Amino acid sequence: MRTFAEMDKKLTVIKVGGKIVEEKESLNALLQEFATIKGPKILVHGGGRTATALASQLGIETKMVNGRRITDADMLKVVTMVYGGLVNKQIVAHLNALGICALGLTGADMDIIRSHRREKGEVDYGFVGDVDYANGGLLSLLLQQHIVPVMAPLTHDGSGQILNTNADTIAAEVSKALASFYEVTLVYCFEKKGVLRHPDDDDSVIPHITASSYARLKDEGVIQDGMIPKLDNSFAALQAGVSKVVITRVGQIGNPQLGTTIEL
Amino acid sequence: MRTFAEMDKKLTVIKVGGKIVEEKESLNALLQEFATIKGPKILVHGGGRTATALASQLGIETKMVNGRRITDADMLKVVTMVYGGLVNKQIVAHLNALGICALGLTGADMDIIRSHRREKGEVDYGFVGDVDYANGGLLSLLLQQHIVPVMAPLTHDGSGQILNTNADTIAAEVSKALASFYEVTLVYCFEKKGVLRHPDDDDSVIPHITASSYARLKDEGVIQDGMIPKLDNSFAALQAGVSKVVITRVGQIGNPQLGTTIEL
Repeated sequence: MRTFAEMDKKLTVIKVGGKIVEEKESLNALLQEFATIKGPKILVHGGGRTATALASQLGIETKMVNGRRITDADMLKVVTMVYGGLVNKQIVAHLNALGICALGLTGADMDIIRSHRREKGEVDYGFVGDVDYANGGLLSLLLQQHIVPVMAPLTHDGSGQILNTNADTIAAEVSKALASFYEVTLVYCFEKKGVLRHPDDDDSVIPHITASSYARLKDEGVIQDGMIPKLDNSFAALQAGVSKVVITRVGQIGNPQLGTTIEL
Repeated sequence: MRTFAEMDKKLTVIKVGGKIVEEKESLNALLQEFATIKGPKILVHGGGRTATALASQLGIETKMVNGRRITDADMLKVVTMVYGGLVNKQIVAHLNALGICALGLTGADMDIIRSHRREKGEVDYGFVGDVDYANGGLLSLLLQQHIVPVMAPLTHDGSGQILNTNADTIAAEVSKALASFYEVTLVYCFEKKGVLRHPDDDDSVIPHITASSYARLKDEGVIQDGMIPKLDNSFAALQAGVSKVVITRVGQIGNPQLGTTIEL
């Protein structure tokens, strides 16, 4: 049995995707499970489907390139409303009802995550921010007060501009920034049991991926598309001192051995 | 000259109405002025005009009774997005750019303001919350860390339900909850110089209103409509230990003698 002091040194960062937080039933299941996680913890959420739906209702077209949202001024308002307002505050209210002292944050709040607007390359992503730093010291102070940060995928440039930032990236950056304060486990929680060898076979979970097996799995085409940035983020996090990265689904967060564990 | 310790015991709570925060120029002026206020401070904002505009774009009808918004499920989503997301985060990003460690909060965050849904009387206001308590101890801990709370007019019922709550009321409740920690000045900041004796004469500011002169001014019809709940809130705050209430406009927050001071 671990002592209290040891337990407090272990931090769990959970990133949960749009589909889960945007359907009432799966959100309830997630938050119930999240509430049972012992020790300090952080929840990072998406909200893309709701943003796309609201944009559509407002006559704003959603354009995605490489799975990333082109964020013009109108779309920035939409994601600020949906991620920072609707999705974030619903999760916060729900967690507080479960007795968790949840605090909703964007990167702009207390300058927690500073970014810069991505330079225009072949694609102009618009108001999209690449992270410069996350303030691990301040997050650690909050965690010590038993506050549970609930983080929306928005950052700011320090000059008053809010920027849209991928939630997987937020989770990785926050985990990295806290790696010198805690033994950090980063959990990417999505709809599948883990990284699958055969996309149609939910029982083909790959239990472990290392840097060398990752290269092989990419060559074989087993890992492709949206999974590549997730795994790149995972390895970057491990290289920056994060202890463990797990890719799994709601219902088995507490049993990481059921999902895919990423190791250096 | 006051000592640092004395200065730290004085708290300024500024409530700023929709019209000011929703126009770029007046918002900039307000935030510049807010940034110069010494010592601990809190900003409470509205956002009603933006909520009404977004609702209209979404085909949701805005119904007001006695100046208060009827908040059905769709309207609750709109105000959660606009107050908690768009308006709040824009202010937070802007203040951080001015070097202020601003933290956006709704009442749901860390259970800062708990409310209950208003009972249906002659009017069913829908998802509107009447405040049960504001957590002055927790707000005071934030203020001691030089964090500046930026509060959206949303609360929660402790069972996961977000509720729409009037921003004037939020400002008064927060001021009251902090009155045992600080010498609190509550400033209601709106478009006019102060409470006017003659609505069309901007130079007819009433410098002081006391409980007895308030009764007379109501009888005379000088104070009516939307100003009545604001003054009722002011007197309730004073009775609960708030030191001073000022009704004024942007540009003269630092010179309370130019606005209307409310006294018991």
